[in-house]
Amino acid sequence: MSEQENNLAAMRHSLAHILATAVQRKWPEAKFGVGPAIDNGFYYDIDLGNQTISEEDFEGIEAEMKKVIESDQAFERIEKPIDDAIAWTKENDQPYKEELLNDLKRAGTTLAKDLNQEELGTIADSDAKVDTVSFYKNGDFIDLCKGPHVESTGKVGSFKLNKIAGAYWRGNNKNPQMQRLYGVAFNSAEELSEYLLRQEEALKRDHRKLGQELDLFVFSDMVGSGLPMFTPRGTILREELAKFSNSLRERRGFQKVWIPHMTKQQLYEVSGHWAKFGDELFLVKSQETSDQFVLKPMNCPHHTRIYASQPRSYKELPIRYLETTTIYRDEKTGELNGLSRVRSATQDDSHAFCREDQIETEINNLMSAADELYQTVGMSLRVRLSYRDDSDAYLGSKELWESAQKQLKNAVISNKLDYFEQAGEAAFYGPKIDFMVTDAIGREHQVATVQLDFVMPERFNLEYIAEDGSKQRPVMIHCALLGSIERFMSVYIEHTAGRFPVWLAPEQIRILTVNQEKETLDFAAKLEAEARDLNLRVTTDNANESIGKKIRAAEVYKVPYVLVIGSKEIGSNQVTPRIRKDMAVLDVPLSVGVEEFLKTVANEAKSRVLKSSL
Amino acid sequence: MSEQENNLAAMRHSLAHILATAVQRKWPEAKFGVGPAIDNGFYYDIDLGNQTISEEDFEGIEAEMKKVIESDQAFERIEKPIDDAIAWTKENDQPYKEELLNDLKRAGTTLAKDLNQEELGTIADSDAKVDTVSFYKNGDFIDLCKGPHVESTGKVGSFKLNKIAGAYWRGNNKNPQMQRLYGVAFNSAEELSEYLLRQEEALKRDHRKLGQELDLFVFSDMVGSGLPMFTPRGTILREELAKFSNSLRERRGFQKVWIPHMTKQQLYEVSGHWAKFGDELFLVKSQETSDQFVLKPMNCPHHTRIYASQPRSYKELPIRYLETTTIYRDEKTGELNGLSRVRSATQDDSHAFCREDQIETEINNLMSAADELYQTVGMSLRVRLSYRDDSDAYLGSKELWESAQKQLKNAVISNKLDYFEQAGEAAFYGPKIDFMVTDAIGREHQVATVQLDFVMPERFNLEYIAEDGSKQRPVMIHCALLGSIERFMSVYIEHTAGRFPVWLAPEQIRILTVNQEKETLDFAAKLEAEARDLNLRVTTDNANESIGKKIRAAEVYKVPYVLVIGSKEIGSNQVTPRIRKDMAVLDVPLSVGVEEFLKTVANEAKSRVLKSSL
Repeated sequence: MSEQENNLAAMRHSLAHILATAVQRKWPEAKFGVGPAIDNGFYYDIDLGNQTISEEDFEGIEAEMKKVIESDQAFERIEKPIDDAIAWTKENDQPYKEELLNDLKRAGTTLAKDLNQEELGTIADSDAKVDTVSFYKNGDFIDLCKGPHVESTGKVGSFKLNKIAGAYWRGNNKNPQMQRLYGVAFNSAEELSEYLLRQEEALKRDHRKLGQELDLFVFSDMVGSGLPMFTPRGTILREELAKFSNSLRERRGFQKVWIPHMTKQQLYEVSGHWAKFGDELFLVKSQETSDQFVLKPMNCPHHTRIYASQPRSYKELPIRYLETTTIYRDEKTGELNGLSRVRSATQDDSHAFCREDQIETEINNLMSAADELYQTVGMSLRVRLSYRDDSDAYLGSKELWESAQKQLKNAVISNKLDYFEQAGEAAFYGPKIDFMVTDAIGREHQVATVQLDFVMPERFNLEYIAEDGSKQRPVMIHCALLGSIERFMSVYIEHTAGRFPVWLAPEQIRILTVNQEKETLDFAAKLEAEARDLNLRVTTDNANESIGKKIRAAEVYKVPYVLVIGSKEIGSNQVTPRIRKDMAVLDVPLSVGVEEFLKTVANEAKSRVLKSSL
Repeated sequence: MSEQENNLAAMRHSLAHILATAVQRKWPEAKFGVGPAIDNGFYYDIDLGNQTISEEDFEGIEAEMKKVIESDQAFERIEKPIDDAIAWTKENDQPYKEELLNDLKRAGTTLAKDLNQEELGTIADSDAKVDTVSFYKNGDFIDLCKGPHVESTGKVGSFKLNKIAGAYWRGNNKNPQMQRLYGVAFNSAEELSEYLLRQEEALKRDHRKLGQELDLFVFSDMVGSGLPMFTPRGTILREELAKFSNSLRERRGFQKVWIPHMTKQQLYEVSGHWAKFGDELFLVKSQETSDQFVLKPMNCPHHTRIYASQPRSYKELPIRYLETTTIYRDEKTGELNGLSRVRSATQDDSHAFCREDQIETEINNLMSAADELYQTVGMSLRVRLSYRDDSDAYLGSKELWESAQKQLKNAVISNKLDYFEQAGEAAFYGPKIDFMVTDAIGREHQVATVQLDFVMPERFNLEYIAEDGSKQRPVMIHCALLGSIERFMSVYIEHTAGRFPVWLAPEQIRILTVNQEKETLDFAAKLEAEARDLNLRVTTDNANESIGKKIRAAEVYKVPYVLVIGSKEIGSNQVTPRIRKDMAVLDVPLSVGVEEFLKTVANEAKSRVLKSSL
């Protein structure tokens, strides 16, 4: 951590103490758990026995905290032998602190393994000696704590309590349930209010909320958590994204293949995944045979089987397979979250099998595809080059690694991509490139990876016949451009707030009739048919409702173009498209001939034009 | 069975006796199991102790059989009390027959449940009284047998022994293994030789053999049996078929949806499938949660979850979902066979939710799609209308059934489809239409089904708001046009013998260079690029090989158009396409301008023209 980050963490942790000070003043019987600094703020776990704190209490607690801050109490460090510290927790009736100290005393530094980082972090470093422990005192309030803190309670920047949640003591559901009070805190009032504004915006853009409003995907208790199903609208989005990613790769020599979603476990025993990730897989049992199957959590081992089904010559390489297919991972249910973390993730996966001297060209090929993709969706791309370090944790010769790393870097540079390098971040089986995008409200997301692999070809004994007739190993390059379609959708729905560019919009044009006269309905039907002939996704709302209500209904679905059809349009064969605000160049809508309008939109969709100013 | 079919069966069963007669003459110690008539012929299960019969013995056995036939022995029926019959089997050392008789005596007519149809069929009808059993005698040979037989051994048409296989006694692998001798038999020598010729042709067209030769799909022991993987060539075929089926349905108002390949078991408990087909499913175990999951063996229950995710109005109906997605069924490994019977089958599935009064229009819609599909692939379609009978084994009111059956028939008639009707063949949940196609060598295959369903909407409590504001149940219509893509591919590969029409051919054009001069390679590269611009699938063979060898290589892959490029072509910018024989109208290839040729082929592909005279 930088010094600045350390200061911010000390400030946030000091605010946790100030929160506890205020709570103790209002509820003297409060028992405290742990109260660490976290990203953007802090929390404290509190047990009030039969009482509970609600969000309505926040104002009062904040007022009390402000008093503590205004009185600018110094944070004073006090060291005590561990037995004295235990005696103190008994005197002060703080059973949770007592339990932590007893554990610390019993287990010594090995406690690090039992306590999670947050718990331990508040009372001792993982490698600390535990003969003595430290307390911090501000005013009347004393708390077992390893520090560090800011100098005094007056130096804590700006804060706000923002959330309350249940939390089992030490994360174990067999322990008592406490209340976790969360606060956010920043150096200045400006930073805090900027953060809160961004949070508010993020809440509005929450893809789970928009997914429902825009009718994109649904979950069902009968099907199971983390297993989204996609409605017609959501499926269009999925398919258009997949089609684009596939086309980018097909243009670059990748060929589609197809594999089943299950396999005998043996495939992963050979690949080595079973030993490493066996407990993250869904196990599949046949009732007919004794074969042990699993659902595939990745596609590469299957793809090696297609490569290996024929003898291969150096002249054929690179052989490039692509497949947009669903993988299944047994994620912890607590970590499942809308489309960001699912159990069924559809990867736009690809595997290139190439010679060592072809690595740079191949990476170049993939970089240019990624660049084109993210430019088209309007997200800025940054890449991390993950290299090996000097340890011997890596497989494959140092020369191979060095040559490969150089080829990766050359490819990134020649694609003029924004990049940074990190040694020691490579996988043991090869160096890699991670793609990161920044969304419209400033959050960075990792979306995809290009991964060199020197190990899998070895494990599966993949070969090609070299020019001199000798048998050689190909290198494998794993790459997904979008990463997982579900995860990308979660990012992109929030990035665009559901205002998709025309090529991705599930509904591109909505026709609204001002009345239900035959002439109007006929004109609308003809218009719709003409739009369909141009492969446009169009619907007609000819319900017997006011035009205002129909316009608002179209706005809910964030339809890019809305056409109101009345006698003027019929008479002139012109339309005055209402353009979705983020796409409109002019404030005043202009009239245009029907044919010209439809052709323009069709071209916009086909060329994947990004008009939106997000 | 018709009288003709009965005669044929009696003739084939008589041949089984004649086979046994001949075997007994050559191996007097032979113990006999059962010897029924089967499709196209007959077999007999025989145990020779330490000896075995091989195909080399066929000639000798056939010669002996012909002697029996020439001597025209009468088939004489002898009835014996069951205890006398048992005594006879002991005297004649026929332990298998003895076991059958003992079982028959012990169990009486309930034996029908224990004995499979073939076993039982040879000694007693399932509802026969078992005080006495019958024997048939021809010459010296006597066999326990219920008959009937032809009059005498001279009246058995033409036959040929064609196969020998191991068979456990009564199909149980704990019982002794016997040898099953198969023969084929027909009324006339012409019919027999026609059948044998067709068999030979079928062998040449075997899709497993062609799948390998044309590099379409592969299996791997590490992945598991019944789980095919598709190479780039095979994937093109899959995708083109799916794309066509999808487009036919999209044009008819179906919308794509997407569901995961697994679900909690609960979904099928609600649908009722768990109780009926629970043991045919792959069970999926989460290592993180106690949820019991399964792989989906069908898509309808998932699709109801998307339907039910919103309130629906009568105005929105029909709501039509389509999805081409893979289902998993735990088929018996012994029944797995190439792509015809797999564990991972990709259905071009669809579900329409409609009002009762919309059934006919919906069926009409689907019939016209099926008709267009099978006309395009060049296979003649015949449909079976499966109705309820008078029993009360069906759910839903009789009025609903009658109206629905009438609507099905109207739709079939208005699409001018060849059809026949069968009462009692409906599923308990609704009437259905089965599609059958005849392939190029006269075999009929069931490919797809349209199924009305009155039950699933009930079980999932599906509703729509009717015009009068009341809640009503929609009807569900299940339909897959191709059925399963894998199974359809197995049929179509054999139907076409791998000579796919241009729109389906994995490789549509192959360019062969006569030399490796720069001018030639440049022209070929330019030609290839022009073809790609028209979305044609084209490759270039510019290897340093003789042109004859290159042509033969292209023929192996049954490429529709082969272009040989030499100085003549470069000079004239014309090509003389070698057209695959089945597609060629003229024997003499004609020259044509490059541009015109490519445009013609692109149009042929786009319009899915069927030139082949299969």
